[in-house]
Amino acid sequence: MKLLRVGPVGRERPVVMDEAGNLRVISEEIDGTFFASGGVARVREALESGTPPVLDAGGLRVGAPVARPGKIVCIGLNYRDHAEETGATPPAEPVVFMKAANTVVGPYDEVLIPRGSVKTDWEVELAVVIGETARYVETHEEALAKVAGYAISNDVSEREFQLERGGQWDKGKSCETFNPLGPWLVTADEIPDPQDLGLRLWVDGEPYQNGSTKNMIFGVAEVVRYLSRFMVLEPGDIINTGTPAGVALGLPGTPYLREGQVMELEIDGLGRQRQTVGRA
Amino acid sequence: MKLLRVGPVGRERPVVMDEAGNLRVISEEIDGTFFASGGVARVREALESGTPPVLDAGGLRVGAPVARPGKIVCIGLNYRDHAEETGATPPAEPVVFMKAANTVVGPYDEVLIPRGSVKTDWEVELAVVIGETARYVETHEEALAKVAGYAISNDVSEREFQLERGGQWDKGKSCETFNPLGPWLVTADEIPDPQDLGLRLWVDGEPYQNGSTKNMIFGVAEVVRYLSRFMVLEPGDIINTGTPAGVALGLPGTPYLREGQVMELEIDGLGRQRQTVGRA
Repeated sequence: MKLLRVGPVGRERPVVMDEAGNLRVISEEIDGTFFASGGVARVREALESGTPPVLDAGGLRVGAPVARPGKIVCIGLNYRDHAEETGATPPAEPVVFMKAANTVVGPYDEVLIPRGSVKTDWEVELAVVIGETARYVETHEEALAKVAGYAISNDVSEREFQLERGGQWDKGKSCETFNPLGPWLVTADEIPDPQDLGLRLWVDGEPYQNGSTKNMIFGVAEVVRYLSRFMVLEPGDIINTGTPAGVALGLPGTPYLREGQVMELEIDGLGRQRQTVGRA
Repeated sequence: MKLLRVGPVGRERPVVMDEAGNLRVISEEIDGTFFASGGVARVREALESGTPPVLDAGGLRVGAPVARPGKIVCIGLNYRDHAEETGATPPAEPVVFMKAANTVVGPYDEVLIPRGSVKTDWEVELAVVIGETARYVETHEEALAKVAGYAISNDVSEREFQLERGGQWDKGKSCETFNPLGPWLVTADEIPDPQDLGLRLWVDGEPYQNGSTKNMIFGVAEVVRYLSRFMVLEPGDIINTGTPAGVALGLPGTPYLREGQVMELEIDGLGRQRQTVGRA
């Protein structure tokens, strides 16, 4: 199933896309409580047994598919090719950082270059949405059972703030609009192998990233298992699992984002995003 | 005013302490929406004009004074003496990291040493609770106007996870129960100078930290102003403003926490916390 939220900022309506591509209204918000209380199963049942009303979504904005995530946890340098391009040694265990949860915006919303920024960069990533509380998970099987679904994340990053302003990466990861998410959440049952997805990103039509989740150093199951030893993952939490090669930081001439440019992102089976770059 | 929340985990009731020390019931949850919508003024008015019913809180647990903070942002190495004890050069601009918001527990709740941990440490800190959205704040005066109030935070930290496990500090900051908060939020009007507060921490009655917010490298106003250039601070967000010298990491013999020990924390005008150390 594809779950999404459509409507103006702050007034999105949760919907499910049926097989014909119709958006059908869900009567409850898609958030931590929804996942924790079996919301996915309820929506599936409603789709199968009845006919939730169709929403005419013509012209409606698409919001992020999860409302108010409790946290966004990110894995750094998690693709062999990206670790190489940034000159970093591939990590022996996952590099973990965090991103403010209020960076989440819709998949077609504007991304704002922060004031004073000259190094705003893109990162296409497979986002994992947690469906059940994960605490000291032991096995990869158990870890995957905690996953509600997947989506595209653009882990927008300001490299000067991240790397040259004294200390931890979070400073360059949490700026306003820095996490376009969506267009929809695809439930885990429809992604039989999260380690076999192509992911691509273009800026102004020029291809920059073209990788595969095959090249992740730590796969989804290991990332969930590992993180659950260091923090409690809760329903609705998002994990950005890292980006493949091809970010501006690693390219000749470091072609960082400029106002008016357009980013497009795609992951196999998860749809496509498109953001215009503006200024804060 | 002192705002607090009393009752079992997940079922806390918001109350305000009146001048006689009675707890009087507040009819709305103390969260981001409360601060954003003028909740503090409403409670003040209710206290002044009427008589919200007194709650018999005898024996009730005290929870954290803010429900569901959107994020916890932390400032590292922000006291001259603590930067020295850890061998770090005092930072030229604030060191920023984040802590999962679901680490927040009540001021007397148990703190759990994570599985596999041998370096769990304490940090008494002045917590700033944001009352109004702060985005590209220009002046210190404007920054202080964004503050709803103050509380005690114990920024519990696992030093091996933080410093020796590959990468960013967040990994050692986000473990379950790692942010006792409270016992109450003291509204900003009652703390005329946040840069003149003594803060102290004991373990098993032994004094370890005894500092003053005078020694902050970046004061509260500058921290709020600075952070608002890198992220949008929202009502209900918490900023842990750093810890003075005296953490286990910096002491001879590095006396990290052991099961059964008791931490007590105090900040002038903000009350006192007490946590027993358990095991996850």
